Order: sequence, then structure tokens, then C-alpha cells
Amino acid sequence: MKTIDINCDCGESFGNWSLGRDAEIVPNVTSANVACGFHAGDPMTMLRTVAIAREAGTKVGAHPGLPDLLGFGRRRMSITPEEAYAYVVYQAGALRALLEAQGMTLNHVKPHGAFYLMLNDETDLAEAVARAIREVCPVARLYWPAPIEGLALPEAAKRAGIDVVPEVYFDLEYDEAGRLILQRKKSAVDVDVVRERVREFLRSGQVVTVSGKRLALNARSICVHGDGPNAPEMLAAIREVIAEKGINLAPAA
Amino acid sequence: MKTIDINCDCGESFGNWSLGRDAEIVPNVTSANVACGFHAGDPMTMLRTVAIAREAGTKVGAHPGLPDLLGFGRRRMSITPEEAYAYVVYQAGALRALLEAQGMTLNHVKPHGAFYLMLNDETDLAEAVARAIREVCPVARLYWPAPIEGLALPEAAKRAGIDVVPEVYFDLEYDEAGRLILQRKKSAVDVDVVRERVREFLRSGQVVTVSGKRLALNARSICVHGDGPNAPEMLAAIREVIAEKGINLAPAA
Amino acid sequence: MKTIDINCDCGESFGNWSLGRDAEIVPNVTSANVACGFHAGDPMTMLRTVAIAREAGTKVGAHPGLPDLLGFGRRRMSITPEEAYAYVVYQAGALRALLEAQGMTLNHVKPHGAFYLMLNDETDLAEAVARAIREVCPVARLYWPAPIEGLALPEAAKRAGIDVVPEVYFDLEYDEAGRLILQRKKSAVDVDVVRERVREFLRSGQVVTVSGKRLALNARSICVHGDGPNAPEMLAAIREVIAEKGINLAPAA
Amino acid sequence: MKTIDINCDCGESFGNWSLGRDAEIVPNVTSANVACGFHAGDPMTMLRTVAIAREAGTKVGAHPGLPDLLGFGRRRMSITPEEAYAYVVYQAGALRALLEAQGMTLNHVKPHGAFYLMLNDETDLAEAVARAIREVCPVARLYWPAPIEGLALPEAAKRAGIDVVPEVYFDLEYDEAGRLILQRKKSAVDVDVVRERVREFLRSGQVVTVSGKRLALNARSICVHGDGPNAPEMLAAIREVIAEKGINLAPAA
Repeated sequence: MKTIDINCDCGESFGNWSLGRDAEIVPNVTSANVACGFHAGDPMTMLRTVAIAREAGTKVGAHPGLPDLLGFGRRRMSITPEEAYAYVVYQAGALRALLEAQGMTLNHVKPHGAFYLMLNDETDLAEAVARAIREVCPVARLYWPAPIEGLALPEAAKRAGIDVVPEVYFDLEYDEAGRLILQRKKSAVDVDVVRERVREFLRSGQVVTVSGKRLALNARSICVHGDGPNAPEMLAAIREVIAEKGINLAPAA
Repeated sequence: MKTIDINCDCGESFGNWSLGRDAEIVPNVTSANVACGFHAGDPMTMLRTVAIAREAGTKVGAHPGLPDLLGFGRRRMSITPEEAYAYVVYQAGALRALLEAQGMTLNHVKPHGAFYLMLNDETDLAEAVARAIREVCPVARLYWPAPIEGLALPEAAKRAGIDVVPEVYFDLEYDEAGRLILQRKKSAVDVDVVRERVREFLRSGQVVTVSGKRLALNARSICVHGDGPNAPEMLAAIREVIAEKGINLAPAA
Repeated sequence: MKTIDINCDCGESFGNWSLGRDAEIVPNVTSANVACGFHAGDPMTMLRTVAIAREAGTKVGAHPGLPDLLGFGRRRMSITPEEAYAYVVYQAGALRALLEAQGMTLNHVKPHGAFYLMLNDETDLAEAVARAIREVCPVARLYWPAPIEGLALPEAAKRAGIDVVPEVYFDLEYDEAGRLILQRKKSAVDVDVVRERVREFLRSGQVVTVSGKRLALNARSICVHGDGPNAPEMLAAIREVIAEKGINLAPAA
Repeated sequence: MKTIDINCDCGESFGNWSLGRDAEIVPNVTSANVACGFHAGDPMTMLRTVAIAREAGTKVGAHPGLPDLLGFGRRRMSITPEEAYAYVVYQAGALRALLEAQGMTLNHVKPHGAFYLMLNDETDLAEAVARAIREVCPVARLYWPAPIEGLALPEAAKRAGIDVVPEVYFDLEYDEAGRLILQRKKSAVDVDVVRERVREFLRSGQVVTVSGKRLALNARSICVHGDGPNAPEMLAAIREVIAEKGINLAPAA
């Protein structure tokens, strides 16, 4: 491993409500996943988040969600494949226009929350979303938590010629099956624990599951959460360890 | 006059609610202004409307509105220029992506309802929206009711190098000052009256105001309303008179 | 059977969008289920619908839905019991206040669309909604399609001392298990078929399923859909047959 | 002066987004103005805020706003009197039902943001809102910044027999005309300055304007903002000075 990418979800404020420390996080990652107005974000928030990314040279992708502002896109909804297609093109297209107006390009797509969860399993939705990504993203690229094998959207994306970037998470636990254990309420993560996990991963390419099993993850990007209580500290720690190891930060291009 | 354009507002359904007879209207105009989800329209409605237009060879532009679904974008809201900019890029960008996914391009922008009214007068908003149109629309083009002289957005648009297409309305009355008399509730318009107005306009380039004054209008497009009770009949009548006169229908390119 | 109630879902317009022929339907039923702003309806629509009901002497209940305007409340969403509770009290409470301002009372509650479907099965949601109904409805009353036996909300409601009014539908088919066959797109129903079904039900207390089986339904109310293409005609036919049989129309009090 | 009331705006979170330190503020005021879902707040947030108030014995009133979540109700919108009426009854009615479910009553109404500003001047809206308050609030009571003389809603409310409670603000400046100088972005207020203002007011019934003029304010309630950066500290200081003076805290009943 010569280079690695760090990505974060951001732009998840809405109107007068703030969420996440984007001004501190976005400049320190290489790829930013910007909410597009369905689960969070709004045109002004998107504009501001894109401006921060542009200033810092951070690549920007779309972070589309279900149309559920009240539930922050975290509640499963029974939508049709055609709706899934239209929701992704609409959201990513709106962001793409804001990016292009600032001389930037749409770099990737990463589905949010319950939409992400649904796209692990639901094959029809996955086909529709893969088509949407291919059509809306100039260089079609999808971020997804590793391991991606056998999951609906990553598989559909690969079939559609989309570059799938597997991610590793150091602020969440992995269960025995290699699945991330999601937490609705972000708690502060011990920075030393994170530091150790990063070292281990950069050395061996492995993470340790909650049951102590070692799991090889073929990840090209590290995902950090911008809304954790100590997100900037954790990000700094990750960057330090990467620098120690002589690895360069670079977008997953 | 060798050719003339006919445009209509469309795609103004929302979810389960239908508005306008798009399937009958859109194929019979040369330019369609599609609502983008703020005052009306939603990703699925946009998708369907774009498909109708594509099938018929009708050009598609964005019809952005204020973020007021409940008020159908017909209530003035005090927004900032930066908000106006972001709202137009977001809405037109979302539509542009849906168009490009079907091999089409975004042809123009035409603001809706109270947003349109505000942009007649408010110079700061107008500058922001002109910038948005230039940045989001590959061939920057704005539709506006004639006469456009001295109005905030048309003037700002011309300064920004945007092609401003003046429109004439045959289903509304003009007041003495040459302003359209808007009606919240569309009533059926007498088709013979419309036919006569079209003949007069195509012959002399003039419309007759409510007070009987003749007013020269330098219009390149005829706007028809898709939600009037007899919109398809009125559109057919307009097309007939145009054909009688040997004028060709063509988008205002 | 001396008296029977007829109820209809109504007030399902939203802002500028109209749905259903409320002005023709509401005065001709004895109980109206008014949408409350989550899946459809808005304060002005509610006000107008309540005014129609008041004029006609029609009882009014709440028709609460999931917070999904775009999906018309027809898409399942994974909500918590506490959310279900709060959504029902909020919606029914808003309607109750509009009713009381006109000297009326909230007569009953009838959940809409996917919310209704979820409450057939999900016990935890059902307990929460039963509590909401008991707390928000002066005389706690719930409408539900018959047969109600073994279904989550009707059972929870009965345990909570809520009067459950079983309904029969003449514009939908029943499957072999006695479940209604829902149609997303309402098609016109043959009025003579409906007339025959009403006669049969009033004579024998039975409906005939799609497979020809006879099914006894212990219904106290007939539900008609206000958004079917020939809803007023169907309603008139139902009322005629009821009058023929010498049965009185009266709210299910 | 034997007793004084302290009120605060609260419940202005929305879904996953938090705003204001309600858990610290609401128990330490005597009256809480709870947002009702139009500019902020949602059924779950309302439920939680009401629970905090109930636990602490704080009275609860409605804080209705314009239907503009994206703009936090701070953008003027041209609504009709009938809409204003329906919006207030809907919002206050929804809150009233949540209160009554917990054995509480709706204590008062206080309009939010741009709706408040509009109701200073617009007589037709004011008449409609006064009627709404009288009809939805068991003991009709309105909070309004002093001096209330000559303002549209306070005058309409008095004519309608509504108890108008004039408020004083210690965390905002007064201009020469005795109008509050509103700030969109709340900055921390010097607690010692506030303490001095409270002493002065409790001694003389006066506040000092930005130009140094003394202004007598006939206020029965002190309004504190829950979303200021040091709101809890400011509130503690106000309570201390009140206690020093031997005045009792009590709702403005």
C-alpha cells in the first residue's frame, strides 16, 4: 500500500440546524460525501460544504438518502427501483451542478443510512441505483464498506463497470460476520484504540472483530464520521499513524 | 417571422397528486418548462415528464420555484440572493442530470410563480439568478414574458450574456402597462378569442390590452398553461392559426 | 340491522393539488375520515373539509398517516412505537382543535395506507396507537376493515376499551382469507355489481370472495373511497339499496 | 411587583438535529413556548419537551411559526388571514393534544420569528390569529414583547378578550423606538450586563435603550432565549437577581 484515501460523510446540517464539524473535518480528508437534501443538507449547506472542499482540494461525492428529513434517512421505506433511480440521479445531479459551477466534478456516490442498508440486500433497487450512478457520475465510482463480496449494490455496480472503493471503519466495531455494528447515537471513541486499529490495518490489512477474530479487509479508503463527539481528534490520530508509516493520502481515483 | 416557439409549464404534479394534462400538452409544444421539486414536481414526475418530451422531441428547460410546496410557490418569501442562487443551481442541476441520463440537454430556465414576480423587481436576487443560469445551463437561455425592458432578471441576464426569449400569452389579459394579469384560479379561455389574438399577433406583432390599447410585443415564444381546463383545445387552436400563416414551429434556439 | 353507517376517506388534497370529490361525497356519508397533514391534507384543506362536514351534519374522525407526503403514506417506514404514538396524537389533535373551533368533536380515528397495513401486524406499534387513540379521542373509537379478529391494532384497541367499528368494502374484492385486495390505482367499479353486493350484505351479512366463497362480516359501517372515478355514483347506489331495505343511515356511535 | 414569570422558546430541535439546551432551560423557567412542527419541532421533540416541562411544573404554550422548516420560520411569506388562522389552530391544537394526554393544559400562544414580525403590522392576519387563539386556547393568553401598544396582534387580542402578557428581554438591545433589535445569530451575552439590566428593571420598571434613553416597560414576563451560547448561565443570573429582590417566580396566569 502506497497511498490511502480518507472519506467522511458531511454537509448534514439543515437550514438553521448544524450537524458535524465540517469546517474541521472536510479539509483533512481526501474525499467528502455530501448530503443532497433528502435526508439532510439543503442547497445552501451544499454550497458551503463544496466551498470548504474546494478550498482544501478535497474531492466531493454525493451522499444520497431516502426522502425522510424527519428520520434523517435512517428509517427503511419501501420504495420502488424506479424511485431509487430517480432519487439518486436527482440528488447527485443537484450536487454535480453545484460542483461544476465551482469548477469541480462529481467524484463518487455513497448511499446514506437506511438506503445503504437496503442496497446491501435488495437486488432490484441495486440494479436501478447502479444505473443511476453510471449515468450521473462522470467517472462512475461507488464507496462501500468492505467486505463488499456478495452484496447487492457493490455486485451490481461491478457488473455495470463502476469502480467500487471498499472502505474500512476504525470508529465502529465489526461483528463476526465482518459486518459493521452501526450505532444510532455516536459515542466518543478512544483515540488510542483507533490509533492501534489503524496501525494493525496498515501493517496486516486486517481488523479485529468484536469476538477477537482477525478479518482481512481489502479497503482502499478509511471512513471517518464527522458527527462523532471527538471526530477531529480521531481524524488527526488516523492521519498521524498514516504519516508514521510513510503512506501518502490520496483520493481513491 | 419565419418560426415561432410554443412553451408550457409542466411536470407540476407531486407524488400521488396530478396537475395538468402533460401527456396531451408536452408533445404539442416545442419547449417544456419542467418543475423541479420545490414548488411542485418530484424526481419521478420529472422522469416521466422528461420521457414524454424526449419521445416527442420537445426541448426541456427548468422551471424552478420557491421552496414552498404547500403554497405551490405562489407566496412571496424573503430569501437572500445566495439562497436564490443555490436554489436555482440545485433545481436546474437535478433536472439537467435527469435529462442527460436520457441523452438530452438542459435548454433554458424559466422561474415560477412568486419567484418570477420577485425577479421582476429585486435586483440583488436577479444578479444571483443570472449567475446561476449562466453556470448551470450549457447554452444559457431565459424565458420571460414580454415586454422585458427594465425588469430586474431579464436585464441582469442580458448583461451576463444570457439569451432572453420574450414570451407572449394568449390565455391571459394584458393591463395598460403591458403587464400580464395573473389569475390564481385558471378559468377556461374562449378558444375563438385566443384564435383571434394569435392571428392579430402573427399579423401585426401586437396584443390588445384590457383597455383596448394596442401593444407591440417582441415575443419569440408563445406560452400556454397546461393546467387550464381547456388547455389542449387552446393549444390546438394556436397551432392551427400558426399553420394557417405558414409559420414553422421551432424551439427558440 | 336497523341502522348502518357509511364512512369515507377525505380531505386528501394538498395545497394547490386536488384529490377526491369531497364536496359531493362528504355530505352523503355519515362519518368522514379527514387526512391530517402527514400523508395528505393541510390546515386549509382540513378547515374546508370540516366545514363541509359540519354543514351536512357528517361526523368527523382523524385519518392519520405516515410522514410521507411524497409517497402519499403508502410506503412502509420503520417507525418506533413512540413515534407512532406521537404522530397519531399530533395529527388527531390538530384536527380535533379545528373541529372544536367549529363546535364539533373528534368522533373516531382510522389509520391510513401503509400505517394501517403495519398496524395489522406490528404489536408494539399497535399498543402505542391504541394508547394514542384513547388519549386523544373524547369517545375512543377506531374504524377497521372486518374481519378484525386477531389483528394487532383492533385487538389492542379492544383491550384498551376502545370501540372498534368493523367496516365492509363494496368497491374492493375480498381474497379467500377475507382480506381486502388493495389497488393503488382506483378503477371505476361497476355500479350494478356494487348494488348487488350491498343487497347481499344487507340480506345475509355476507360478502362473496374472489374465489366465490361466502364470508360473514360483522360490519357496522360501509367504507366508500372518495377518489374512485365514479365514487359519487357508487355512493348513491349504496344509499339507494339501504333505503330500499328500510335501514336508516346513522353514525356508528 | 410581587411575582414575575420567565418564559423561553424551546422544543426547536427537529428529528436528528438538536437546538437549544432545553433540558437545562425548561425546568428553570415558569412558562415554555414549544415549537409545533412548522418552523421547528416535530411530534417526538414536542413529546419530549412537554415531558421535561411536566416534570418541572413549567407551564406550556404554543410557539407557532410559518410553514418554512428550511428557513426556520424567519422568512416573511405572504400568507392569507385564513391560512394564518388555520396554521395557528393546527399547530396549537397538535400541542394541546400532546399536553392533555399528559394531564396538562395549553397555557398560551406566542408566534415565532417572521410570523411574529408580520403580526406586528398586518391587521387582517392579526384578526385571524386572535380568533385562532381564542378558539384553541382554553384560557386565551398571548405573549408579546412590550411595549405592545398600537401593534396589530396585541390590539386585536385585547379586543377579543385575550389576556396579553407583555415581555421584557434582557439578552437583546432596545432601539430608541422601544423595539427589540433582533439578531439572527445569537452571541453570548455578558452575564453581568444582564444582571444589571434585571436589577434596574425590577427596581424601576425600566430598560435602557441603545441610545441611553430610559424606557418604562409594563412587562409581566421575562423572555430568555434557549439557543444562546450561555443561555443557562444567563437564566441563572436572572433568577438570582429576582430572588435577591424577594420577588417570586410564577407563571403569568
